[in-house]
Amino acid sequence: MKLLRVGTAGAERPALLDAEGTLRDLSGIVDDIDGALLADDGALGRVRAAAEAGELPVLDAAGLRIGPPLGRIGKVVCIGLNYHDHARETGAEPPAEPVIFFKAADTVVGPNDTVLVPRGSTKTDWEVELAVVIGRTARYLESAEDALAHVAGYAVAHDVSEREFQIERGGTWDKGKNCETFNPLGPWLVTADEIADPQDLSLKLWVNGELKQDGTTADQIFPVAEVVRYVSQFMTLYPGDVINTGTPAGVALGQPEPKPFLRSGDVVELEIAGLGRQRQELKDA
Amino acid sequence: MKLLRVGTAGAERPALLDAEGTLRDLSGIVDDIDGALLADDGALGRVRAAAEAGELPVLDAAGLRIGPPLGRIGKVVCIGLNYHDHARETGAEPPAEPVIFFKAADTVVGPNDTVLVPRGSTKTDWEVELAVVIGRTARYLESAEDALAHVAGYAVAHDVSEREFQIERGGTWDKGKNCETFNPLGPWLVTADEIADPQDLSLKLWVNGELKQDGTTADQIFPVAEVVRYVSQFMTLYPGDVINTGTPAGVALGQPEPKPFLRSGDVVELEIAGLGRQRQELKDA
Repeated sequence: MKLLRVGTAGAERPALLDAEGTLRDLSGIVDDIDGALLADDGALGRVRAAAEAGELPVLDAAGLRIGPPLGRIGKVVCIGLNYHDHARETGAEPPAEPVIFFKAADTVVGPNDTVLVPRGSTKTDWEVELAVVIGRTARYLESAEDALAHVAGYAVAHDVSEREFQIERGGTWDKGKNCETFNPLGPWLVTADEIADPQDLSLKLWVNGELKQDGTTADQIFPVAEVVRYVSQFMTLYPGDVINTGTPAGVALGQPEPKPFLRSGDVVELEIAGLGRQRQELKDA
Repeated sequence: MKLLRVGTAGAERPALLDAEGTLRDLSGIVDDIDGALLADDGALGRVRAAAEAGELPVLDAAGLRIGPPLGRIGKVVCIGLNYHDHARETGAEPPAEPVIFFKAADTVVGPNDTVLVPRGSTKTDWEVELAVVIGRTARYLESAEDALAHVAGYAVAHDVSEREFQIERGGTWDKGKNCETFNPLGPWLVTADEIADPQDLSLKLWVNGELKQDGTTADQIFPVAEVVRYVSQFMTLYPGDVINTGTPAGVALGQPEPKPFLRSGDVVELEIAGLGRQRQELKDA
């Protein structure tokens, strides 16, 4: 299923994009698309049954904003340097074990919302990423196989990053990862049953129409299942948590000088095969 | 005012400890102690008026668990190496600007709840910290003076840390800061009007009755007001966000070998003048 949330920011209603591409209203049968729903097999089953029976009312998509496809997000765990080609372009050795950092859940916005260039920023950068949405509490998981059973679905994430704040201002990467609007998510939360192999997804990102990132999750150093297993050794993952699993090569940081960092007026588009497409215009904060 | 939340985990009710030390029930006039309440001067005023008029029902404190004094926490921003004496003991240069890392809100537990030593941990460490609770949205604040107007109150925080995960496992500090139960908070959220000077608070921590940390916020490299101003340049702070402002000297990491890291059965007690006392027993996860 393709689950989404539509409406004004903070007042989104749950919806479903059906197999014919028609937007359907879910607000009659679920309160929201959130961790509580993802952890509730019965409720998810009712959504699926109603969708298959064609019982869900059609929603008029015209002019409707698409919000992030997940409400009440707990935490957003991020994996750094998780593609061989991206590690190479940054001059870093491939990490021996996953690099973990955080984005605050309040950085999450809709897939087509404005992204703000922070005040004082000269190095705002893009990163297309496969986001994993957790559906079952994951704590000290024993195997990568077991890990995938804890994944509710997948989405496109834009891990917007300010490289000066991240790298040159002391401390950990979090300083350049948590500016307002820095995590567009969506358009859809695609349930895991629709993704045959999370290690065979094409990821693309364009800036002002020019293709900048063109990768595949096959190049991930630590695949999704291993990432979930690994993270669960250091923290408990709850339904409604998100893991951004890293970005392939092609970010501004990896280009020759002068590096083409983002500025107000730029347009970024992102796409992952089967997970939909985002489009953001940059503006000054 | 001393605000708190009492009852079983996840079902706490709001309460107030009055000037005579009597526990009073707030559940008749507010839903919870959370960001929405802290941002609502009218609601806070009603609580204060009811308390002063002696109108709040007495709660029987016997056997009542104390939860974290804040519900629906947004994010927990942490400041590293923020005391001169702690920077010295770890062999680090005092940072030129604040070091930022994160704890997930789901690590927050009550002040006397069990703290779990993570599986595989050999270096679980203690850190008593002054927590700042945000009451008004803070975004690109211009001055330290302005910053304090965005602080709703203060609390004791225990920034439990696993040093191997934090320092020796690659990536950022977050890996050693986000284990389950790693952020006891409370007992009280003390409103800012009761704290004459946040830079003149004594912080103490004992392990198995032995005094290990004995510091003062006067030794902070970046005082509370500057921390709030600084953080607001990199991310937006919302009502109900928490900042853990760093720990003074005396952690296990700073001691000679063999360093006395925490083990199951150890008891940690923490106190900050005017903000109350915590007591946690350690158990294996």
